Amino acid sequence: MTNFGRVIDDRLNAFCRDSDSYLEGAAEGPLAGLTFAAKDIFDVAGHVTGGGNPDWKTTHEPAEKTARAVGVLAEAGAEMIGKTITDELTRGIFGENAHYGTPVNPRAPGRVPGGSSSGSASAVAGGMVDFALGSDTGGSVRVPSSFCGLYGLRPTHGRIPLEGILIQAPSFDTIGWFAREAATFARVGEVLLQSEIQEARPSRIVVAEDAFELAERAVAGALEPFVDKISALVGNSAAGRISETSLDELRAHQWRLQNREGWESARGWLDRVNPRLKFDVAERYAAASAITDAEIEAASSVQADFVERMEPMLAGGAVVCMPTTAAPAPPVGESLSARATLRSLNSSLTCIAGMLGAPQINLPLAEVDGLPAGLSLLGERGSDEMLIAFAREIEASLKS
Amino acid sequence: MTNFGRVIDDRLNAFCRDSDSYLEGAAEGPLAGLTFAAKDIFDVAGHVTGGGNPDWKTTHEPAEKTARAVGVLAEAGAEMIGKTITDELTRGIFGENAHYGTPVNPRAPGRVPGGSSSGSASAVAGGMVDFALGSDTGGSVRVPSSFCGLYGLRPTHGRIPLEGILIQAPSFDTIGWFAREAATFARVGEVLLQSEIQEARPSRIVVAEDAFELAERAVAGALEPFVDKISALVGNSAAGRISETSLDELRAHQWRLQNREGWESARGWLDRVNPRLKFDVAERYAAASAITDAEIEAASSVQADFVERMEPMLAGGAVVCMPTTAAPAPPVGESLSARATLRSLNSSLTCIAGMLGAPQINLPLAEVDGLPAGLSLLGERGSDEMLIAFAREIEASLKS
Repeated sequence: MTNFGRVIDDRLNAFCRDSDSYLEGAAEGPLAGLTFAAKDIFDVAGHVTGGGNPDWKTTHEPAEKTARAVGVLAEAGAEMIGKTITDELTRGIFGENAHYGTPVNPRAPGRVPGGSSSGSASAVAGGMVDFALGSDTGGSVRVPSSFCGLYGLRPTHGRIPLEGILIQAPSFDTIGWFAREAATFARVGEVLLQSEIQEARPSRIVVAEDAFELAERAVAGALEPFVDKISALVGNSAAGRISETSLDELRAHQWRLQNREGWESARGWLDRVNPRLKFDVAERYAAASAITDAEIEAASSVQADFVERMEPMLAGGAVVCMPTTAAPAPPVGESLSARATLRSLNSSLTCIAGMLGAPQINLPLAEVDGLPAGLSLLGERGSDEMLIAFAREIEASLKS
Repeated sequence: MTNFGRVIDDRLNAFCRDSDSYLEGAAEGPLAGLTFAAKDIFDVAGHVTGGGNPDWKTTHEPAEKTARAVGVLAEAGAEMIGKTITDELTRGIFGENAHYGTPVNPRAPGRVPGGSSSGSASAVAGGMVDFALGSDTGGSVRVPSSFCGLYGLRPTHGRIPLEGILIQAPSFDTIGWFAREAATFARVGEVLLQSEIQEARPSRIVVAEDAFELAERAVAGALEPFVDKISALVGNSAAGRISETSLDELRAHQWRLQNREGWESARGWLDRVNPRLKFDVAERYAAASAITDAEIEAASSVQADFVERMEPMLAGGAVVCMPTTAAPAPPVGESLSARATLRSLNSSLTCIAGMLGAPQINLPLAEVDGLPAGLSLLGERGSDEMLIAFAREIEASLKS
């Protein structure tokens, strides 16, 4: 791929080959000297945002304005070297794009990078950029963070304006980012959140039993020592259960809420263009088109109850500690049926923050047989800075 | 496209560009001197059958044997110059392939060729070959015959062995062919049906009122003088109704029977490969996966009743006369919703022969505003030769 500003030797298939989106960073600023990439759902003025689908790309015009998040990063001195591959229309958590290929997971060769912010995670994990922008609607930053061994945040819903990105489901869409080190992660966070990230620490750790029950035994085992260290840092921890009934049930309700909105966002284009889509992506749209108003009402009511149930658990700066994904990255190219269980389990974990609109950070601490397995901290709405600061402290304490 | 045997100047986008399937015809035989093409669902030994989908092509091995129908044509002296574009996995009746483009309809520029045997119809209508092989499960020979102004037959189900073709729904799949003139059409028919086509004529014409009611007024009007001429040739005609209830209801039942089988044929591959499909093709598979056994039982019972109802109407060599399609070819690139009505109307016409397993021939006699509009003759099972012979007689009588 040639690029107006740089030549990228993309051995990871992380970057969009038909895009030459490049932005010079401001000469001075808090991110001067850092390079980044953005998932191909972020607009860059003058370029068509591809959204991971060739028919999307040919049926849309070049963006008039650069996405707000991209703009603030460049103004802060970071240099954007390109756009990265995404699961088409941000639909998917495994990162296998049928049109453009699967970005390599540098930490787990032969395995998926996770999605939908697959290329961003791949590029950061492979050292091609210092950090990268992604988005997280149903897990699209958290899952690739876990699979590729990166820091990654799903911020509080509404915290980072979505201006200039391809929308999936506005009630769940968030902008997140990836980095290899907590210090870099925090520097970027200060710019994106437009806020200082001072030292901070949760008041209490709640170890989510029902979330750990969903994880493979080896994953739970690998995370356990880190849960202990984190609990020790805080000095106040307890076990707790997230769901009154089951996380799988919560997942099903969250699925309906997100997919109804996803269908509403896409249906006009699907009707007009009849585009090529990966079978399971199309299948999901087809299923979403059949979601009833009664199902949406029921799901909204479950969501309201869940928010109410979780409020006291998280109040006053408490943090839930849980596995980010139920297993490490699975091999590339598995069948849909072979993936069905892992897909559900991962979504049963990611739906929690989605239903709450709460921030969740992935800590790339553990490994299972050499494969990254992420540990998550989830705080109350607005606790983004605290989570990032605490991640930085944890990293420092583990190094010392 | 270069080809082992010939160079094809494919200005119509009718041929598969990545295929070089070529078969020399035997030096002597009844089809010596004729050229033909085959829809890319027919195996040619040593080549991968593409099925109109790039992911099908890359996940299948080269065929070991040449399809029986292709083989008998080559043995009879016809030269096969290439494979033609099909709607992916034969799913579609409009002929717009999202992966390889839409073959040109030489008789109706800017309009679809009809599908799924789109490239075969395009190549014959454009004079690139003398005849071409297609297949018809739910209308895939009849609709493009009507749209491109060609003779085309859906033969009696089971009459031409399906050996060596990509199967969609075995209870409905048939092999058909296209030609510009009835004489050529009959010569090919003698080889494919392995039977002489002697002069023959129906005993009676039944003009299907409910089928004509589905056609656009202009189409019905354009067909009417030909119905009169055909009736006059036979000297025995009457109006009749095909369906006791409605053809749209018959269509819905036929849809379930065909699509359940289509799902059974494809589901293993869909699960294993998670391929790229056009949205409405994927949507149809998703809908088919939800068809219940009770629906299938009900549809089978409707089919049995319908066969019983039609037997006396067709017995003794009677033929139903009806529009092949409700309208001429629509413009390329319309939205799914803009096409929904025409899709249903056309399927309400094509489902009749499908439910009966009966042969139906398209006669390219009429035009509406310069666009071909086909007239169909449908006979009892086994009346293929008579339909072809009568088509030849009609053509001769109109020329004289």
